[in-house]
Amino acid sequence: MMKAIYFDGSKAAYREDLPMPKCEPGHSLMKILVANICNTDREIMKGYTPGFSGVMGHEFVGEVVESSDETLIGKLVVGELNEGCNDCIYCRTGREKHCLSAKAIGISKDGCFAEYMTQATHLLHPIPEGLTPEQAVFAEPLAAALQISKQVHIDASLNAAVIGDGRLAYMIAQVLALNGISMTVIGKHPEKLSMFSGFAKTKLYQDYFEGDAPRALTGDECFEYVVEASGNPTGIHLALHLVRRAGTIILKSTYTEQTTLDLSQIAVNEITVVGSRCGPFEPALKLLKEGKVTFPDVEWYELKDFEKAFASSAFKAGFRIG
Amino acid sequence: MMKAIYFDGSKAAYREDLPMPKCEPGHSLMKILVANICNTDREIMKGYTPGFSGVMGHEFVGEVVESSDETLIGKLVVGELNEGCNDCIYCRTGREKHCLSAKAIGISKDGCFAEYMTQATHLLHPIPEGLTPEQAVFAEPLAAALQISKQVHIDASLNAAVIGDGRLAYMIAQVLALNGISMTVIGKHPEKLSMFSGFAKTKLYQDYFEGDAPRALTGDECFEYVVEASGNPTGIHLALHLVRRAGTIILKSTYTEQTTLDLSQIAVNEITVVGSRCGPFEPALKLLKEGKVTFPDVEWYELKDFEKAFASSAFKAGFRIG
Repeated sequence: MMKAIYFDGSKAAYREDLPMPKCEPGHSLMKILVANICNTDREIMKGYTPGFSGVMGHEFVGEVVESSDETLIGKLVVGELNEGCNDCIYCRTGREKHCLSAKAIGISKDGCFAEYMTQATHLLHPIPEGLTPEQAVFAEPLAAALQISKQVHIDASLNAAVIGDGRLAYMIAQVLALNGISMTVIGKHPEKLSMFSGFAKTKLYQDYFEGDAPRALTGDECFEYVVEASGNPTGIHLALHLVRRAGTIILKSTYTEQTTLDLSQIAVNEITVVGSRCGPFEPALKLLKEGKVTFPDVEWYELKDFEKAFASSAFKAGFRIG
Repeated sequence: MMKAIYFDGSKAAYREDLPMPKCEPGHSLMKILVANICNTDREIMKGYTPGFSGVMGHEFVGEVVESSDETLIGKLVVGELNEGCNDCIYCRTGREKHCLSAKAIGISKDGCFAEYMTQATHLLHPIPEGLTPEQAVFAEPLAAALQISKQVHIDASLNAAVIGDGRLAYMIAQVLALNGISMTVIGKHPEKLSMFSGFAKTKLYQDYFEGDAPRALTGDECFEYVVEASGNPTGIHLALHLVRRAGTIILKSTYTEQTTLDLSQIAVNEITVVGSRCGPFEPALKLLKEGKVTFPDVEWYELKDFEKAFASSAFKAGFRIG
């Protein structure tokens, strides 16, 4: 029996009666040390994943206690979310996370808000010496930020903007700023924007409007790369207004509603829109170890206090478990 | 005085009383030999370019009669559309066609449905020996097709689909097929699709539907690259259904109406959407000269018969002028 936060398809509950996960061939069993809350977890509670019931959570550091790879036993690891079928066009072409039958921890199979969890061994990454679990748990969201430079060649002699002043925007802006590129962060909250001042210029949404209408901009005022990480559909409209012709929008936000756009603007102005999601763990661990990116302290909770943890407005709330 | 098709802001007319264009410094004066009709010309007549009045037309072959570059005099040339300000961020970074104050022949300045036209000399390309004006006039639309491989690295070991069975689709599919990639063309008209059978598999829209609903597809049935060249907003929805996760949609179509999309699909499935417009003339001229791409015969008209020419449903209708 173990303790966990269990989502039954309509609501989450703290339980102490869940069976210990069984370690299948090719997998590893981990004792979870720390696990952080992601906005996706909050969306799951609002019905984002119809049909899913199971243990929640996907950002974690665990200690391997059983594994198909014996050299991992006793090691502290972080892990990727999605285990593919190992057979389809996506799995065969290096896109396991896009496998149509992928199982994702905390989203379509049991996750990490628990004392123990299993995951496919090839998805685990040992954390470098000198990195604490409390730091290493940022590897997953930081990897998502690093996915941008995996997908798009960033020419640092140009300029970039991030739309959004939340957690995701903070990670993306820090990572992009490491390229040395001129960086502007555009948000709605002066107090949040002040977090970015060490590595980016900051602007308010209203700086780009005159009343309700977007202000006409010269090419110099526009941006070669615009990352939409606001989580709000107004963000994509601002992105289309701010991006230079022949420039690139990186779309990190997901919106629950459909969005109405003038696609001709994309064709005629030769805009590229790149959808971007999970990313590479190894560079994330390296940057964390080297202290090249840093984050505010996590607010820690016990599993049984999950309701308080989910309601937290801290930069990150997490669970100290093991 | 010269003959021309003149658009007065609301309708086109054949006129014989237009003044000869004056050749400004840095420009060339050409006697127009042939000029083809593009769908954009038809859209201008429907009000696509508010505020524009002038000579229509932008696909041409001319003989240079006066020029800032004397070596061009007597040469047959084709020409790019857009002359920039030579000063802004777009002009300074190789994106003259995107200059916010660019002047485009037949769209925002006098075009080529006339006996004479001027254009900036640096936008002209002499046609290679052995290429007739009737062949070379395809350089402009073919360049637009070639823009795709300028923007997107096409991995020929994967597969591609073109949505649309019209003129633009025909040029794009021919050019992409030269990469050796597995190519499928998807259209609504069996008789038009038969044109593509020499270099592509063909499918009907309805092959991807069950009743009104898109049919569920495996990753193998989907495409790595999907070019939307149908000119119809249903095309972008089909493109989003057909593209593989982490695949690329190239958006060639422009739609007059706004389009409603599920952008989360783009973010979560990491789709890239690349808007694509005018392209490089030199490779177009090379492929035309080498006979690597071919087109059905043009239906030729005199300028005074422009109404018949615009109403033509031929692959291309054009004017023999000089």
